[in-house]
Amino acid sequence: MAVHQLVEYADASPEVRAVYDDIRATRKTDFINNFWKALANDPATLKRTWESVKQIMAPGALDPLTKEMLYIAVSVTNQCSYCIASHTASARNKGMTPAMFHELMAVVGMANETNRLVAGYQVDIDEQFQTP
Amino acid sequence: MAVHQLVEYADASPEVRAVYDDIRATRKTDFINNFWKALANDPATLKRTWESVKQIMAPGALDPLTKEMLYIAVSVTNQCSYCIASHTASARNKGMTPAMFHELMAVVGMANETNRLVAGYQVDIDEQFQTP
Amino acid sequence: MAVHQLVEYADASPEVRAVYDDIRATRKTDFINNFWKALANDPATLKRTWESVKQIMAPGALDPLTKEMLYIAVSVTNQCSYCIASHTASARNKGMTPAMFHELMAVVGMANETNRLVAGYQVDIDEQFQTP
Amino acid sequence: MAVHQLVEYADASPEVRAVYDDIRATRKTDFINNFWKALANDPATLKRTWESVKQIMAPGALDPLTKEMLYIAVSVTNQCSYCIASHTASARNKGMTPAMFHELMAVVGMANETNRLVAGYQVDIDEQFQTP
Amino acid sequence: MAVHQLVEYADASPEVRAVYDDIRATRKTDFINNFWKALANDPATLKRTWESVKQIMAPGALDPLTKEMLYIAVSVTNQCSYCIASHTASARNKGMTPAMFHELMAVVGMANETNRLVAGYQVDIDEQFQTP
Amino acid sequence: MAVHQLVEYADASPEVRAVYDDIRATRKTDFINNFWKALANDPATLKRTWESVKQIMAPGALDPLTKEMLYIAVSVTNQCSYCIASHTASARNKGMTPAMFHELMAVVGMANETNRLVAGYQVDIDEQFQTP
Repeated sequence: MAVHQLVEYADASPEVRAVYDDIRATRKTDFINNFWKALANDPATLKRTWESVKQIMAPGALDPLTKEMLYIAVSVTNQCSYCIASHTASARNKGMTPAMFHELMAVVGMANETNRLVAGYQVDIDEQFQTP
Repeated sequence: MAVHQLVEYADASPEVRAVYDDIRATRKTDFINNFWKALANDPATLKRTWESVKQIMAPGALDPLTKEMLYIAVSVTNQCSYCIASHTASARNKGMTPAMFHELMAVVGMANETNRLVAGYQVDIDEQFQTP
Repeated sequence: MAVHQLVEYADASPEVRAVYDDIRATRKTDFINNFWKALANDPATLKRTWESVKQIMAPGALDPLTKEMLYIAVSVTNQCSYCIASHTASARNKGMTPAMFHELMAVVGMANETNRLVAGYQVDIDEQFQTP
Repeated sequence: MAVHQLVEYADASPEVRAVYDDIRATRKTDFINNFWKALANDPATLKRTWESVKQIMAPGALDPLTKEMLYIAVSVTNQCSYCIASHTASARNKGMTPAMFHELMAVVGMANETNRLVAGYQVDIDEQFQTP
Repeated sequence: MAVHQLVEYADASPEVRAVYDDIRATRKTDFINNFWKALANDPATLKRTWESVKQIMAPGALDPLTKEMLYIAVSVTNQCSYCIASHTASARNKGMTPAMFHELMAVVGMANETNRLVAGYQVDIDEQFQTP
Repeated sequence: MAVHQLVEYADASPEVRAVYDDIRATRKTDFINNFWKALANDPATLKRTWESVKQIMAPGALDPLTKEMLYIAVSVTNQCSYCIASHTASARNKGMTPAMFHELMAVVGMANETNRLVAGYQVDIDEQFQTP
């Protein structure tokens, strides 16, 4: 069954090719990574996911590198090896230095620790942090 | 049993007071939030955690606001209500605008989604993303 | 130490063989997958787990294919590669089509996204959703 | 700061109202739950999320009730109280009986258990489950 | 719908009462906590879960207090408030001192931190840790 | 970029060597596992993490083997393969028998199951478990 086959450009339907073309144009590279080739088994999800990612990761109130580092923070917390590898590569391409990576990891590690200390000590939310 | 009692300054040992004093001096506020008052039941963990947080969240290759947003990204992924409330308050104090918060949430949501698409489609890591 | 050795039928105790025999009879196949061969190092857990799985995955108010897809939804959320691979294979055997798999993945991805949007926006439960 | 305010219809921009109107028309109810009212602080995310949810949860290869139960399976695994409450209510509206709910919970509980047994026993994926 | 109603002894079926009686006899207390009263909506899951818990939490190669602390470690990692509250109460009843609780929390916090450092740094398993 | 390179003793700075020396002296072995060699790319995090781990895992109110088993419980719950492999090896070195490992796994599995049953059934915390 074709569910997990990677769909190469040569074998892709026009609908899938249109997404691949947009990925290439947006990212200014010919490289299509496996994530998209896997999603291409379901063109509706491929198109919806790409359009969401494209919109969300574009420069805005946050710059693209900050967004990549947020992506890494989530992926590390969820232990998603693929996502860690691919977004670390992207972040480097966007200018993440080793020093930035080290600090990112330190924050992610500490947040995962204190999240559990809060839970274990059953800490109530301070009045000052309540939303009105 | 005193495990979950909040330790107020007036009742604190000199060891705990020293940490509280440093929190106040570092953060330039008299406010000590419940997290630290709960940890104060175990002065060794209070001291170690505060010193780690102080070191990690200080300005460096990443600015303090970016670090707060990374903290939120982890806390949201882990569903830690206290941590979300407290670090959202901190991030606002450090200049997070509504537009920045909205983009932060959009990235965190999307990363949590694609982390699972990658897992479900059993996507192998591209050679290009492999570390040497 | 034998903790992680896979226990083959030929080397198994009568107690373990009885479980293996029941797995084969229930599933109408000679194939025993590695999960059970690993649990067989602890015959009490092997027996308890198999009996629970057998009871829970049997046809009832939900059909076996729906149950397999729920199993995949959990395993993808937890990033358990073994469980994703084995239950995807089982679901296919029970009739999951590519179109069903694609929709399953889309729901799992979206749920993981909105779970975090809810947390990050600190949304209170509507009165209408409260249990009495 | 307005980040966590719930946006009521009366106070909503035309862009937000258009989404609210579509939610009401699609779901055939006047009720807009808090999740959407919170997202409405960020009209772009409101619109994108609603359009994705609408597309994904529509009848297809899987029926809407099965999709709601998958949503619950993910939300329970992630411990998202709001999502559990809201999607359990939706699933009931779509015909989930107590017996179906009980079996759903049994599968979700068991999957969360065996996911960890697999991890702890460090079980390798059987050749038979490998994707080609 | 009765799904989330708590089933009191007076209203329980003989099947449910038999489990409640066994809980009381095993734990030497009249108190039945809400978890069991909720599961009682599904007598099959109530019985299966209680029998598994009874078997697993009994004294064996590990003593009951160690088992309660392991339960807390998992529940804190998963951010399950109910489970943290109930198993912390049980652990205290079995002799957990404040000092033991503090060290338990320190280990759980640290493990959650280093789990993510390992993921983020993409650390390969040392040959020495490989299972044969 | 050197982020993920393993730093060997021969190539290490004096600051990193001092930590490696302390690891070797504390653990009474020449073996430095990959985790520390990866962290050594960031000497500040290496030093802080090692000092925390050394302090937390030392004998105290809980013995070192219990602490290793708690570490495994967390790592299994988080699906961290490296951490499971390394801490299982450590626990064995500290005297964990197969019977102890089996009971540890049974508790971790069951806790992960009941954590979700509690969430799905939306169980409220009993008054008796409330902290004062």
